Amino acid sequence: MRIADIKEGPVEVQGWIENLRDKKNMQFVVIRDLSGKIQITVVKSETPEVAEIFSHATLESTIKVIGKAVKNDYVKLGGIEIIPESVEITSKAEALPIGPESFIDQRLDYRWLDLRQVKNQLIFQVQTVMAAALREFLLERHFIEIHTPKLIPTASESGSEVFEVKYFDRKAYLAQSPQFYKQMAMAAGFERIFECGPVFRAEKSHTKKHATEFTGFDLEFSFINSFEDVMKMEEEMLAHMLKRIKERCGEKIKEVFGIDVVVPSLPFPKMKLADVYSELENRYGFKVDESEKGDLTTEAERLCENLAKEMFGHEFLFITDYSFEKRAFYHMRKDGVPQGYDLIWKGVEITTGAQREHRYEVLKAQAEEKGLAKDVEFYLEFFKYGVPPHGGFGLGLDRMIMVLLGVPTIKEAEFLFRGPDRLNP
Amino acid sequence: MRIADIKEGPVEVQGWIENLRDKKNMQFVVIRDLSGKIQITVVKSETPEVAEIFSHATLESTIKVIGKAVKNDYVKLGGIEIIPESVEITSKAEALPIGPESFIDQRLDYRWLDLRQVKNQLIFQVQTVMAAALREFLLERHFIEIHTPKLIPTASESGSEVFEVKYFDRKAYLAQSPQFYKQMAMAAGFERIFECGPVFRAEKSHTKKHATEFTGFDLEFSFINSFEDVMKMEEEMLAHMLKRIKERCGEKIKEVFGIDVVVPSLPFPKMKLADVYSELENRYGFKVDESEKGDLTTEAERLCENLAKEMFGHEFLFITDYSFEKRAFYHMRKDGVPQGYDLIWKGVEITTGAQREHRYEVLKAQAEEKGLAKDVEFYLEFFKYGVPPHGGFGLGLDRMIMVLLGVPTIKEAEFLFRGPDRLNP
Repeated sequence: MRIADIKEGPVEVQGWIENLRDKKNMQFVVIRDLSGKIQITVVKSETPEVAEIFSHATLESTIKVIGKAVKNDYVKLGGIEIIPESVEITSKAEALPIGPESFIDQRLDYRWLDLRQVKNQLIFQVQTVMAAALREFLLERHFIEIHTPKLIPTASESGSEVFEVKYFDRKAYLAQSPQFYKQMAMAAGFERIFECGPVFRAEKSHTKKHATEFTGFDLEFSFINSFEDVMKMEEEMLAHMLKRIKERCGEKIKEVFGIDVVVPSLPFPKMKLADVYSELENRYGFKVDESEKGDLTTEAERLCENLAKEMFGHEFLFITDYSFEKRAFYHMRKDGVPQGYDLIWKGVEITTGAQREHRYEVLKAQAEEKGLAKDVEFYLEFFKYGVPPHGGFGLGLDRMIMVLLGVPTIKEAEFLFRGPDRLNP
Repeated sequence: MRIADIKEGPVEVQGWIENLRDKKNMQFVVIRDLSGKIQITVVKSETPEVAEIFSHATLESTIKVIGKAVKNDYVKLGGIEIIPESVEITSKAEALPIGPESFIDQRLDYRWLDLRQVKNQLIFQVQTVMAAALREFLLERHFIEIHTPKLIPTASESGSEVFEVKYFDRKAYLAQSPQFYKQMAMAAGFERIFECGPVFRAEKSHTKKHATEFTGFDLEFSFINSFEDVMKMEEEMLAHMLKRIKERCGEKIKEVFGIDVVVPSLPFPKMKLADVYSELENRYGFKVDESEKGDLTTEAERLCENLAKEMFGHEFLFITDYSFEKRAFYHMRKDGVPQGYDLIWKGVEITTGAQREHRYEVLKAQAEEKGLAKDVEFYLEFFKYGVPPHGGFGLGLDRMIMVLLGVPTIKEAEFLFRGPDRLNP
């Protein structure tokens, strides 16, 4: 029985000891589970064996209680309390080595205790709703869920660093994205696919946004007419996701994080990269060197939060027309312009999306131009036997949680953070 | 527009060329997508430019067609055909190097072509429904979805072989299951969690059931009273899963695989391991040496299909009371008997489940007994600060698909099989 479901009458419930006051004649014990809290009231003379157990109990121990729930208007927690008949300590806790105020690295050392904080539990409840809403949206649209291998035969894709694995008597590598394999699914005629799974980056970055392992949510779909179809799918999907999060966790998010979940209007605003730079200069006097204008700089990315708000009253901003030199070789180009986009949410890039180049000869030439033709030979094979026009994008669940809830670092958005100096617990 | 949704009137549709007959005055082209097939009928004199394009088209190329869908009772495919106005070959296919009759290893070399077979596409459509149904069941019961790290600091858990990863200037390993981390979630007060993700096994096995990477579906939940609660959760979840699969894919499975999906009755039958051996001997004269009776032998496992059918008219059989020597150190024991089970489905073991030992001192002693105390030191730490009684189990999605659809080998049940000799494509 969950604590939130307790009504007057006989009750058998388990929980964690959150608080314990041991008075002369009585004990007041507050226990909690994920659903709520309830007070156990012990009259020592009536149940001395229960009183004896609680007299030795420590905070954060887990217990099982059998008793009776009764109304008591003096009890703050829902006006109901439990009069116990028997109590069992199912697990005794030592004194906790950390608290919410401890430094992040200490908290990560004892992550299982850190996660007991209400705000940390809420992060993963929200992430659960997030992933469920994304899948719900896609399943209604005939998407197939796939699980692509994380053990891959060659090291290169977009030039990011990859981890090397000892694979019997040869080497394997850990996939830094399911990109090649989700496109393989297009060659296989799967038409529309998504995948939610780990991606690995062997980068020695120590920023608040980088981790060596995180959870990607990727999709790819066929028979598109342009990358506008991809943007449309993404904006509708994210609007659906935020609608569900607001419905199911909006109040709790407001209470714990002080944040209003905004369900975005459709369509999302769109700007060309060059126009973003002009507006940033006009409005905020922001300047960068011409040589940097093929890509969005980190500072410009941050400023897009204000820009999108001022120009469109929106949290999201699609940016298109990047320089082809800054985009992956597999992005389709039209008159030299990559047919793709980045999506910025509250000043943070959360997606790169694109129509992919599906024509073998063109794709091969673009790989050669980036000096990758040899590394991606196996991937180019996928395009020899018919592949429909297709596109897609990828999201990081952890990063989206950071942006949505204003979590300061990805260390707190992941269940267990992995970084260059962090492989424990 | 999907082919299955085409009605009379203007139409713009994309698909794969499945068949092409080029007659003197006419062309008949069948295109397909995942939803169905439709005929394009070309009167050469009316659209000579379309006829010219089709005269050079190859099978398995992808095309985009604009035209008009009209009724024609002579057309077998749904009594409807497309009269094209314009056609574009979006991707031209070379002649295919394999067919459905090719050997499995050739087919795996060109897996993206092999997956175009209707039966292979159906496998992943069914797997999509399978995973969605499992999540649906769990989300309704307040489970939180987590994503545990696959990069782990130490090599050992249950003694299976693990892959070694070069992690900057140290070693990491690939998780062979999320076991320790899903239990960490219990210590964190997450109460009920599930995870769907890759698991890695560095085993040089070449059986039809083994892969070095596959997709695990794991769950764990707290505040249980015994491992019977775990069995109950699992049987209800699997019954729900099979109900959904039958509803959504039952007919197609019957048509393509000739298999009736059976929604199992509840509760599933349960037997003690010793009783299984007695019955196997009584009924089938099956004997094994006493020394082997602490575990279920492969042959006995297979015979359980018939045993469950004869004794209970059921496809499933829970087997309990294994020898503690054959079970993982973290299984709780009562009077020396592990508080867990295996679940056999049509003669194949699909789960090991158990109540876990949550008491630090007992758990530590059991780890020491198996000589693992040093390797699992970080894991034992989870149990010092209060952990509720809990249990759980794990399933392999690929293996369940094999059993459900009678797929002969896991090589055909995975999107891309990984084995000791197979890391491509």
